[in-house]
Amino acid sequence: MYQLYIANKNYSSWSLRPWILLSQLGIPFEERIVPFDTGSNWEKFRRFSPSGKVPCLVDDQTIVWDSLAIAEYLAESYPEAWPDSREARAWARCASAEMHSGFGVLRNSCPMSVGIRIRPHQLSEQLITELARLSELWEQGLNQFGGPFLAGKKFTAVDAFFAPVAFRIQSYDLPVSPTAKAYAERLLNLQSMMEWEEEVLKEVWR
Amino acid sequence: MYQLYIANKNYSSWSLRPWILLSQLGIPFEERIVPFDTGSNWEKFRRFSPSGKVPCLVDDQTIVWDSLAIAEYLAESYPEAWPDSREARAWARCASAEMHSGFGVLRNSCPMSVGIRIRPHQLSEQLITELARLSELWEQGLNQFGGPFLAGKKFTAVDAFFAPVAFRIQSYDLPVSPTAKAYAERLLNLQSMMEWEEEVLKEVWR
Repeated sequence: MYQLYIANKNYSSWSLRPWILLSQLGIPFEERIVPFDTGSNWEKFRRFSPSGKVPCLVDDQTIVWDSLAIAEYLAESYPEAWPDSREARAWARCASAEMHSGFGVLRNSCPMSVGIRIRPHQLSEQLITELARLSELWEQGLNQFGGPFLAGKKFTAVDAFFAPVAFRIQSYDLPVSPTAKAYAERLLNLQSMMEWEEEVLKEVWR
Repeated sequence: MYQLYIANKNYSSWSLRPWILLSQLGIPFEERIVPFDTGSNWEKFRRFSPSGKVPCLVDDQTIVWDSLAIAEYLAESYPEAWPDSREARAWARCASAEMHSGFGVLRNSCPMSVGIRIRPHQLSEQLITELARLSELWEQGLNQFGGPFLAGKKFTAVDAFFAPVAFRIQSYDLPVSPTAKAYAERLLNLQSMMEWEEEVLKEVWR
């Protein structure tokens, strides 16, 4: 069975992606939580992950140490991890990759912290620009492929890639378009997102 | 025919990735160079790329606006874009994704600038850590899959993802392990890398 190494559910946005993808697709896996320490986690995470980062999927002898690579690896056995149509797949991969390398201001100024509810005093211009791009991107997917998920009727890897953003929107009450807000709420209401949130509340690490 | 939008060959490391992949695989494409301006390029690049960034591949009605998504899109038609074996593919995708979202200090402190030759006075500790990880990663691939390329006998997308790093090592004389240095030189000696470098010298934008 797959083993998925992740860090604290409260903070580890990158861990949430493959966890929610596996959960939503109903793929069996064992969860291995290795909590963040204060300071560097390099040594600790290096015991299982070559990059010293989480998430990391272990499939027997194969180690897959990046969230986007995990999505592609799973898709080789479970093609439903990406949308069925070539056009939707291309879009979904672009949107996921844009999240993977981008949205740095959102990432840094609004780190995922599932349990908190804080409205920032002021939003930087760069954050507003990123949130506008986020709204635009989500609306494009929802319009082009008909919803209710980003690339069509089914939850796929691109939704998993934006799941941490849904928690951020909830925590920081971030201004996104009404359509984008409705989509974030749709994600938050998924059974597996609610499970993740419940498990956050049980965590003892802060 | 594919149209590939890229920026200046001297500076645009992200553009080099799909360009070198298409070139090495012998896939026909039209190159569309849109040079960087001083200041923001958002408006200019938004005319063809939804994220306002390059590279962007246009295939008739399909727009693929991220370098990693381009690799996956091409691989659907040209499976040789990734290695043949499942194990090597998983590794190649992890290494490519690690480059896609990581190595931020290398990226920022040693931006690709193909034409220059400058040895930095001092390397930051963080840069040294990233270069050590880079050497380790490359050596792992070369050892595990037998070379001469990162994931085996053939040039694949993972080599394309590290091609800009080869130019950085050359420009800044960066300290990497002897095996890593030899691999970077192997990339620099590829016909298409030499073509890219020749075209840099003809560019008028600085």
